[in-house]
Amino acid sequence: MRVGFVGLGTMGGPMAANAARAGFEVTAWNRTPGRGAELADVGVRLAPSPAHVARASEVVVTIVSDTPDVEAVLFGPDGVAEGAAHGTLVVDMSTISPSATRAFAERLAERGVAMLDAPVSGGSEGAQKGTLSIFVGGEADDLERARSLLASLGTTITHVGPIGSGQAVKAVNQVILAGGYLGVAEGIVLAMKAGLDVEQVVAALSGGAAQSWVLSNRAGRMLANDYPLGFKVALHRKDLRIALELAGETGTTLPISALVETIEAGLIARGHGDDDVSAVARAIRQLSGLAG
Amino acid sequence: MRVGFVGLGTMGGPMAANAARAGFEVTAWNRTPGRGAELADVGVRLAPSPAHVARASEVVVTIVSDTPDVEAVLFGPDGVAEGAAHGTLVVDMSTISPSATRAFAERLAERGVAMLDAPVSGGSEGAQKGTLSIFVGGEADDLERARSLLASLGTTITHVGPIGSGQAVKAVNQVILAGGYLGVAEGIVLAMKAGLDVEQVVAALSGGAAQSWVLSNRAGRMLANDYPLGFKVALHRKDLRIALELAGETGTTLPISALVETIEAGLIARGHGDDDVSAVARAIRQLSGLAG
Amino acid sequence: MRVGFVGLGTMGGPMAANAARAGFEVTAWNRTPGRGAELADVGVRLAPSPAHVARASEVVVTIVSDTPDVEAVLFGPDGVAEGAAHGTLVVDMSTISPSATRAFAERLAERGVAMLDAPVSGGSEGAQKGTLSIFVGGEADDLERARSLLASLGTTITHVGPIGSGQAVKAVNQVILAGGYLGVAEGIVLAMKAGLDVEQVVAALSGGAAQSWVLSNRAGRMLANDYPLGFKVALHRKDLRIALELAGETGTTLPISALVETIEAGLIARGHGDDDVSAVARAIRQLSGLAG
Amino acid sequence: MRVGFVGLGTMGGPMAANAARAGFEVTAWNRTPGRGAELADVGVRLAPSPAHVARASEVVVTIVSDTPDVEAVLFGPDGVAEGAAHGTLVVDMSTISPSATRAFAERLAERGVAMLDAPVSGGSEGAQKGTLSIFVGGEADDLERARSLLASLGTTITHVGPIGSGQAVKAVNQVILAGGYLGVAEGIVLAMKAGLDVEQVVAALSGGAAQSWVLSNRAGRMLANDYPLGFKVALHRKDLRIALELAGETGTTLPISALVETIEAGLIARGHGDDDVSAVARAIRQLSGLAG
Repeated sequence: MRVGFVGLGTMGGPMAANAARAGFEVTAWNRTPGRGAELADVGVRLAPSPAHVARASEVVVTIVSDTPDVEAVLFGPDGVAEGAAHGTLVVDMSTISPSATRAFAERLAERGVAMLDAPVSGGSEGAQKGTLSIFVGGEADDLERARSLLASLGTTITHVGPIGSGQAVKAVNQVILAGGYLGVAEGIVLAMKAGLDVEQVVAALSGGAAQSWVLSNRAGRMLANDYPLGFKVALHRKDLRIALELAGETGTTLPISALVETIEAGLIARGHGDDDVSAVARAIRQLSGLAG
Repeated sequence: MRVGFVGLGTMGGPMAANAARAGFEVTAWNRTPGRGAELADVGVRLAPSPAHVARASEVVVTIVSDTPDVEAVLFGPDGVAEGAAHGTLVVDMSTISPSATRAFAERLAERGVAMLDAPVSGGSEGAQKGTLSIFVGGEADDLERARSLLASLGTTITHVGPIGSGQAVKAVNQVILAGGYLGVAEGIVLAMKAGLDVEQVVAALSGGAAQSWVLSNRAGRMLANDYPLGFKVALHRKDLRIALELAGETGTTLPISALVETIEAGLIARGHGDDDVSAVARAIRQLSGLAG
Repeated sequence: MRVGFVGLGTMGGPMAANAARAGFEVTAWNRTPGRGAELADVGVRLAPSPAHVARASEVVVTIVSDTPDVEAVLFGPDGVAEGAAHGTLVVDMSTISPSATRAFAERLAERGVAMLDAPVSGGSEGAQKGTLSIFVGGEADDLERARSLLASLGTTITHVGPIGSGQAVKAVNQVILAGGYLGVAEGIVLAMKAGLDVEQVVAALSGGAAQSWVLSNRAGRMLANDYPLGFKVALHRKDLRIALELAGETGTTLPISALVETIEAGLIARGHGDDDVSAVARAIRQLSGLAG
Repeated sequence: MRVGFVGLGTMGGPMAANAARAGFEVTAWNRTPGRGAELADVGVRLAPSPAHVARASEVVVTIVSDTPDVEAVLFGPDGVAEGAAHGTLVVDMSTISPSATRAFAERLAERGVAMLDAPVSGGSEGAQKGTLSIFVGGEADDLERARSLLASLGTTITHVGPIGSGQAVKAVNQVILAGGYLGVAEGIVLAMKAGLDVEQVVAALSGGAAQSWVLSNRAGRMLANDYPLGFKVALHRKDLRIALELAGETGTTLPISALVETIEAGLIARGHGDDDVSAVARAIRQLSGLAG
C-alpha cells in the first residue's frame, strides 16, 4: 500500500520510519526539512507539498500540532485536498478538536475523500517503538483499509465510534491524567513535608486503590523536581484546552481539568513548557514552600 | 500470644475473627454489643471494658472511628491505659491524626506502654479476607512483636518510619485518591456527555498513562450512578480532614484534596455518606446536568 | 459627526438610539432586521451592509457578539473595511480577544483606517440609560475624535492604554467578578444552611471588608434562586474564555476564573445560560443539597 | 456597670481600654502580663485569673484566639465559670466554632450564667477606634444588658439570631472575603501580566459591578507585593477552618473557601502568616511567574 505522512516531528518522524520498515511505500512532507536524510535511509521519499504526498498515496496520515495546522495541511494551498484522488483515505493522528474533526471530514467527503481520526497516546517513546495506543473514530470499513498501517505504528487499536470519537476519547484521557498527575503531586509533596521516605510511600501505596501508572512512574520525578520527557506540559495544556472546548460544547463541568490547565499556563510562562507533564508538581511544591 | 481488640465494627470485627482463626487468644470489647455472638463462634472472648481487654492482652489493637474515639478508649474511664501492664504494646489501626498519634504514644510511654500506629487500606473486603495493606509507624522492635498478628490481618506490612508515620502515609493515600477519583469522574462524565461508549473508553485508556485502580474498578459505578461499597464517602471525608490538618501543620497546599473534601461534605448532607467514595462523580454529573 | 453602528442587539440597539438622540447622524446595520422600525423613530437610518454603513460614516461603532463576528463585519464580504474611506475611525465596543483586537487594528491600519477598542460594562440597563463604563484602548488622538460620541453612550470613559488594553481591562473585570459572584454565593448558601436570616446577614456585612456591589445587589437573587437579568451567564462565560485566553498568552494562573468558567459551561447545558450571572449560586446550592 | 475582660491581645487590649474610657469599671486578665501598665493608665484593674475577673464583674467579655482557648478560660482551673455568680453574663467576642459556642452556652446555663456570642469585624484598627462591627447571637434581653458596653466598642451592633448565630455570620463574612480577596488577586495579576496600569484599572472598575472594599483597599498591596496589616493571613485561615467546619456540619460545599484555606496553609509555612490576608495574591503571583 502507498502511504503518505504529512508531519515528520517528534511523533510523525519515527512513525513514518516504522511504516517504511513494515514494507509500506512511504511518501512524506514536513514544513521544515528536518530529519529527511535519516528517513531516506529507511526508504521514505520526501515530497515538496502535502498535495504531492496525497497524489502519491492511497492513505494519507496527517500528524501535526493543532487544529489550525491540520486545516492548513488539508485545505490550504498545495494541501492534501488538492492532491487527493477520489477514494483516498485521510487518517488524522494529530490531537485536535472533535468538532473541527467532524467539519474537516465533511469537507473531505464533498471531494470523495474519506477520513478517520486516530489520535494516539504513548508519547515519543511509543512512536519510536511502534507501541502507541490508537483511538480510532470513523467508519469501520475505512478502519479496515488502514488497519495494517496502524498495526505498524501501535499495539492497541480501538475503534471507539463515528468520526470525531477518537479525538473525544483522547480528550477524556487527558482529563483523567489531569486528576492523576495533580493528585499524585499533592500526595508526594505532603509526604515530603511530613518527612516520609517518598520511595517507600510509593511502594507501600502501589498495591492498593491509589495504584496508578502516574504514581509508579512519575512520583520520583516530583520528588527530585526534575521532569525529563515523557509528554510535554505545553502539549498537555493544548490537549486540555481541546477537552475544555469539548466540555463547553457538551455542557460538562470539569473543575480539576480547568485548574490544571491554568496551572500549566503559568508553568509555560515560567519556562517549564518543555518539562514532562509531571511538572505540575512544581505548583504544589512552590505553594508549599519547596523549590518549584 | 494474647491479643486484644478494642472496636468490633465493619473493620475490627472481621479482623478480630481473623486473628482468632490464626490461633491468637483474642479478648475484645465493643461500645455496642453487636456481633459478639458471631465472634464467640471463632473463639473471641468479650470483655466488659477496654481496661479489661488490656489486662488480658500482651498486644492491644484499637480500631475505632476517629481521633476522639481513640483518646476515649485509651485514656478515658476504664480505658486501655488503666488496664495495661508495663510492657504492653498498643497497635492503633484506626485512621486518625498523626500529631494526636504522637501525643498518645507519649502519654502511653509514661506508663511503660509502647505504641505503633498501623492504619490500613483495603476496605471491609480486605478486613474480611485478611488482605489489608498495613502502614506501620513506630519502633522496629515493636513491629517485630506485632508482626505475626499483623500477618494474620493483611498481606502487605510496610514499616514507614517513626510513630505517626503510618498515619501520615494513610493521609497521603487518601490525598492521591482524591485526585484519582475526581479525575476519573471528570473523564467519565465527559465521555458520557460526548456520547462515547464508556466501557470501551475505559478499555482503550487502561493500557496507557491514565491507567489506575480507580479507572479499572470504579468507572462503571460512575456511569451507572450507583455506588455500592467499597469505602464510604463519609470515611474518606474524615480521612481527608486528617490529611488537611496534617497539611496545615506542615504547610502544604492541597487544592484537589480541599475541593474533594468540601464536595464530600455536601454529598453527606444529601444522604450519600454511605455511598462508595466513587460517588464524588455525583457532583460532576449534577453540575453537568445529569442525574447525580 | 456622521456615525455608524454595526450591530443593533441588546446593547447596540439602545446605544445607536442614544447617539441619534444626542444629535449624531446615525447609519446602522444589523444581521437580522429586528428593531429597525423603532430606531427609525429616533432618526437612525438603516443601511444594507457594514460596507454601506462605513461609507456613510466618519466613526463606525461595531458591537457584536464575539471575535469571529467582529472579524466578519470588519473584513468579510461587504464588510466595514470595504466601505471605509482613508481616515475613518472604527470603535469596536464588543467584548473580544485583546490579541485579535491588535491584529484587526493592524489590518485596518494597512487601509488607513484607525481603530479603538472600547468595551463596556453596565449591561443592557446601562446601554439604555447611557450610563455605561467604557474602557478605551488605542491612540489618545483617536479617543478625542470619538469622545463626544462615547459621552452620549456612557458616563465613565477611561483611556487605559494602547490598542487592545480596553479589552484587557474588560477581561480583568470579568475575572474579578468571577471571585465576587462565587464567593458571595458560597457565603449566602452557608448562611442559608446555617439557618441565618440572609437579608440581615447582608445588611450586617455590608459595612465591612466583605462589602461589594455583588453582595448588595445579588445576594437576594441567590437566596430566592431566581436570576433575572442583569448580565447573562452565557456572556460572562464567553468573556471568561477571553480572559483565560489572555491568561494563557501572558502566562497567568487563574484558579477561580477557570472554576467559574467550567461551572458556567454546565449551567448553560442545564438551560440557565440566559440567567443573570449570579446564577453561579445554583452550583453551590445544588452541591449543598438545595434546589439549584 | 462592672465589666470584665479576659484576653488583652491585639483586639482585647484596646477594647478594654475603650470600655474603661467610656466609664465602665473594668477588671481584666491576660495569659501573659503584656500591656498591663498601659491599661492601668486608663483605669483597667488587673486580676490574677479569669475566675477573679468573673467575681468582680456583671458582664464578662472573653476575647481570645480559638475554640480551645475559650474553653480554657471559661471552664479550666480558675476559669470564668468558677468565679461567676448566678446571673452573670458572658459575652464571647472571640471568633470560634458556632457549635462549640452552643455547647459552652449550655454548660454556662447549668450554672445560671447567660451567654452571648459577639464576634467582630474591623480588625485591630476598628478595635482601637471603637468602630467594630459586632454580630450578636443570643437572647434579646441579654443583648440589652450588654448594649451600652458593646456601644463603647463598635459602631454597628446587629442581633442576628439565637446563640451561635454571631459566629455563623462571622464565618459567612470570612467565606465571602475568601472569594473577594482571591478574585481581586487574579484580576490584579492578570492586569500586571497584560501590561496594564493597575491603579488606572482599579479606578476604571470601581464604578461597576466589580466594585468592592477589597478592590478599593487592597489592590495596591497586591501590586506592590507588600502586605502590612490589616488582618492576618493566619487569623483568616483559622476563621476559614471554623467556616469549613460549619460547612461540614451543615453539609455545604465551599470550593473557593477550601482553596483559599489551603493556599493560606502554604503561605503560613512560607513565613507569611503575619501578612495581611491580601497576601493570598502571593500564590497567584508566584504561579504566574512573578515574585511572590
